[in-house]
Amino acid sequence: MKIGIIGGGSIGLLFSYYLSGQNEVSIYTRTQEQANEINEHGLHLIKGGIEQGTSRVKAAPIKEWGGNEELTIVAVKQYQLPKLLPELKEKMRGSILFLQNGYGHIKLLSELAINEVFVGSVEHGAVRANGYTVQHNGVGVTRTAVFRGNPGALRELSSKAASGFPFILETDFKEMLIKKLVVNAVINPLTAILKVKNGELIHNPYYFKIFEQLFEECACILELPDKEQYFNNLKAVCEKTANNHSSMYKDIENRRQTEVDAILGYLLELAKNKNKKAPLIHNYYHCIKGKEHEREGA
Amino acid sequence: MKIGIIGGGSIGLLFSYYLSGQNEVSIYTRTQEQANEINEHGLHLIKGGIEQGTSRVKAAPIKEWGGNEELTIVAVKQYQLPKLLPELKEKMRGSILFLQNGYGHIKLLSELAINEVFVGSVEHGAVRANGYTVQHNGVGVTRTAVFRGNPGALRELSSKAASGFPFILETDFKEMLIKKLVVNAVINPLTAILKVKNGELIHNPYYFKIFEQLFEECACILELPDKEQYFNNLKAVCEKTANNHSSMYKDIENRRQTEVDAILGYLLELAKNKNKKAPLIHNYYHCIKGKEHEREGA
Repeated sequence: MKIGIIGGGSIGLLFSYYLSGQNEVSIYTRTQEQANEINEHGLHLIKGGIEQGTSRVKAAPIKEWGGNEELTIVAVKQYQLPKLLPELKEKMRGSILFLQNGYGHIKLLSELAINEVFVGSVEHGAVRANGYTVQHNGVGVTRTAVFRGNPGALRELSSKAASGFPFILETDFKEMLIKKLVVNAVINPLTAILKVKNGELIHNPYYFKIFEQLFEECACILELPDKEQYFNNLKAVCEKTANNHSSMYKDIENRRQTEVDAILGYLLELAKNKNKKAPLIHNYYHCIKGKEHEREGA
Repeated sequence: MKIGIIGGGSIGLLFSYYLSGQNEVSIYTRTQEQANEINEHGLHLIKGGIEQGTSRVKAAPIKEWGGNEELTIVAVKQYQLPKLLPELKEKMRGSILFLQNGYGHIKLLSELAINEVFVGSVEHGAVRANGYTVQHNGVGVTRTAVFRGNPGALRELSSKAASGFPFILETDFKEMLIKKLVVNAVINPLTAILKVKNGELIHNPYYFKIFEQLFEECACILELPDKEQYFNNLKAVCEKTANNHSSMYKDIENRRQTEVDAILGYLLELAKNKNKKAPLIHNYYHCIKGKEHEREGA
């Protein structure tokens, strides 16, 4: 299958590397420089501290993307999506898979006149080492689900998956994304503000109290049908990634913009629309926005 | 006047230094070592980075305190007070002035069969440099008020005050302590968790949102009669100490026990007794306790 991957961050590089074995992958990066680097060096993957080899993919800047591949995977941050949307609307012909966190992008997808629209939730841990090298730190799965249309391209992706990079086809895109949203809404801001690894949230009895309270607020606002199931999933993710630093922790640490708008910002808006109180979500949203503001001031 | 000062921390050293000019001061420290150091070197004060001179006071370990001075000033942390109380009850004869933060110690004072009981609220910034040297970083005032009895000793203290170390006699001890409690409840935990200087809480628009919300919760639980006055005072303190790190920030930074139980712990108990919700106070209480717990685990 011909696959286009938009975005040269950690997820874009990771998907390009693993999918290039069985597919013809083109990666589209924000800058011409990064595209040149990838074309020159190939894509490098580091796993367990060891260089895994090189994979050759075609790289070009995003403006050269023509929507001609059978499947386009959008691997930019949610806050970069609105800028990209006019181009997607204009050129897109094949199927499209969105890998953004949060739930706020769902309303943007309705605007697309594309037959096959899919969404995904990535459970891999990955860090971009440089423009053409990605570290695969936590092996997980990629969950995908149909937002609209025929799941053909997803089935093909899943059946041809490389070893160590599995895809799972879920039936309910909403449940899939909300589950990830809950995980991100609790683990990300708490670890970023308390400056701890994920596991501390359940192993430190005081932090666990906050963890529970923040989950309760999310559950209330999202009106989760089976609260316990979501809470168990949240705890399981925390346990499984106990020694990791969350993406928001790293974004704050490295003074980068975070995904807080897509995560807590979305929940805060939902709370407002539903006329529900969300004091902790409000608090952590402003903690993270304040940290981003500190960066701008410096 | 003969004055006994219990506690060899920053406040105990600061008061001993400034009061020794006009009074006969004895300082009582937790360890024999610190008493020896003070007796050997005298008390040193550093202000604006410059050594101000030496003051000779008598120093002894707390167990030698006999309650014989006309005024005893208790300058230990609130969490150290319960351990000291039996001794105070047994030996105390003169007047006594308590300088603890928070409001939780007020119920302990009722147990004392002492005629003259005073409370104080210290608005100086001071850091202990070593066992016999204190840095006077922020010049403020000491507010005092009568809890029970005749204000004679307070009047004398005030009239003989050293220049640069004024005392103000307040009429309402409760209002005085609550005002300080509100300041400590908002500025201390926020600066300690966000790792910022006091001024950031009002200059960073996102942090200011949290600042307002946390104040609102305190105001509601304390049923403040004139909310605006307390809020203006809080903002004024933040502005005046904009470049300072709060005591709780420094306690967390230096992995010391904080005064969170006397401050947010007191408010949390009050909220529980009044059946009021306090999600932010609950949150920041557990953030700080979690930080203290991290220290124990390491």
